[in-house]
Amino acid sequence: MILTVTLNTALDITYRTPRLVPHATHRVSEVIERPGGKGLNVARVLAALGHETVVTGFAGGRTGDVLRELLPAAPDPRGPASSPDAPGVFAPPVDALVPIAGATRRTIAVVDETTGDTTQLNEPGPVVSPAEWAAFLARYEELLAVADAVALCGSLPPGIHVGAYADLVRAARGAGVPVLLDTSGEPLRRGIAARPDLVKPNADELARLTGSREPLRATRDARRRGAHAVVASLGPDGVLAATADGVWRASPPAPAKGNPTGAGDSAVAGLLSALVERLPWPARLTRAVALSTATVLSPVAGEFDAVAYGELLPRVRVTEQPAQ
Amino acid sequence: MILTVTLNTALDITYRTPRLVPHATHRVSEVIERPGGKGLNVARVLAALGHETVVTGFAGGRTGDVLRELLPAAPDPRGPASSPDAPGVFAPPVDALVPIAGATRRTIAVVDETTGDTTQLNEPGPVVSPAEWAAFLARYEELLAVADAVALCGSLPPGIHVGAYADLVRAARGAGVPVLLDTSGEPLRRGIAARPDLVKPNADELARLTGSREPLRATRDARRRGAHAVVASLGPDGVLAATADGVWRASPPAPAKGNPTGAGDSAVAGLLSALVERLPWPARLTRAVALSTATVLSPVAGEFDAVAYGELLPRVRVTEQPAQ
Repeated sequence: MILTVTLNTALDITYRTPRLVPHATHRVSEVIERPGGKGLNVARVLAALGHETVVTGFAGGRTGDVLRELLPAAPDPRGPASSPDAPGVFAPPVDALVPIAGATRRTIAVVDETTGDTTQLNEPGPVVSPAEWAAFLARYEELLAVADAVALCGSLPPGIHVGAYADLVRAARGAGVPVLLDTSGEPLRRGIAARPDLVKPNADELARLTGSREPLRATRDARRRGAHAVVASLGPDGVLAATADGVWRASPPAPAKGNPTGAGDSAVAGLLSALVERLPWPARLTRAVALSTATVLSPVAGEFDAVAYGELLPRVRVTEQPAQ
Repeated sequence: MILTVTLNTALDITYRTPRLVPHATHRVSEVIERPGGKGLNVARVLAALGHETVVTGFAGGRTGDVLRELLPAAPDPRGPASSPDAPGVFAPPVDALVPIAGATRRTIAVVDETTGDTTQLNEPGPVVSPAEWAAFLARYEELLAVADAVALCGSLPPGIHVGAYADLVRAARGAGVPVLLDTSGEPLRRGIAARPDLVKPNADELARLTGSREPLRATRDARRRGAHAVVASLGPDGVLAATADGVWRASPPAPAKGNPTGAGDSAVAGLLSALVERLPWPARLTRAVALSTATVLSPVAGEFDAVAYGELLPRVRVTEQPAQ
């Protein structure tokens, strides 16, 4: 079982409107609600890859109720392009969320049907009390005992101390469970120092962490800060990985054009599933790049084009970088 | 008791953000939720004027649950400016909403803290089934039996036929209950033909109905279509009333600058409360103009400045227009 942790879950609401004009009144033509937060998205992709997944973190209030109701009905992220030979049967992630008194936040994505662009409004997360955090830690320890790997994903809600991910990394390592950390800012900085097996920053997060915009230098610098491996996602250029076994660059056959929403979460799912399957690094990176590229190519945010994924797998280029 | 009908209730959500930029991601700094829909707003102002009020219409889904939970806690729309000599004690409107399977819609008002402007996103209403409409009609008949007046307010949700307000007007008249209709488009056109006691279009609604942008001509034309009286709200210029007793113009001492949200609902509450109190037309119009102007002057949308209201009452100018 692969566990994903989403401390700041969200009810993701998508509105479609003919054209977004500031200071005007808009009739929304379509409303879609789905469970959101990075860890939940990662779990859906893991499930689509045929892995048993469990999600934990927090949910509360009426919005939390809606989120939990929608979880078992999470759509197969392979979408309509799902082919019969796609790997595994889709079993939605298992709900092990911890209830809290505060209400789960909403995010509103307003899609402008004229330009196709999206305007995003993100509510602040609910405040988590010390007792709720303690209840989560107990649940997390229970789940670690039966997990093959764990992903810690996204921002921290108010009330949770900035070193929380560092604590969760240490607990996972103490339990002998490989741990991937995907966050940003100070929680990433502190989390890395706790020596996670893997971090997956994007170029901006890497620059904030290291002060460098030179990918190879910044990725190596991030690894020296404590992570056993760093896989930097470089958008359409693929990924750059600094590991104990070597340094690799993996790129799609051509930069994909489309909706990048969810591509990072797909990369995390690719890395973690391949780690659990004990694949070597080049195969892990290939899967991450093929999945994230297939996500960009899917018309629906957060879904991936299963046919494109299958076609991309043999075409991702992985090149080992010279040792420094 | 005054009854207000809101067939398309809403959970009104207000977001504050430093600056709204299309196609960017925004952190919302404040989230406020309150029960919405024109009839609910009218009822709150009526309650603040000391009238016993009952609200009916539809509520459903989790958003409907939140709306009903918030109703008894509806804030006194006189706000912090409420003075000890303001009329009446605030007793929140009584909930007589009819449950439906569909979810009550949300409206999102995004306040740009830099410009103070608001961008509005309105979800479509839930589809109302024939059985739910029948349940509402039964509830409406029961409430009419004990109502002194009724206001029919706002748009029709999907599934309700365009002549629905005409039916509700006829039922009220059959029960001998004075009925005010405040809607727009085809529901207004059909509703007027059923001979309501009063309609309160704004300048745009009046122009759509009559084809004329000349207020006096359009107001008289609207009355000829069936309404016993027409009170046209002309924004900062006040109101123009065509009635069986004469034609009047009522204006504030000076055009008010501020937030016009809710000013029309306050005018409806002023007209209806004064009708129930059997005040003559000039006094009804004075109250409507003083209340709507005091609403514009309040910094909070939908609230009115109680001190300004008291000061405006003796200063509204009412002039009778010559007979045509």
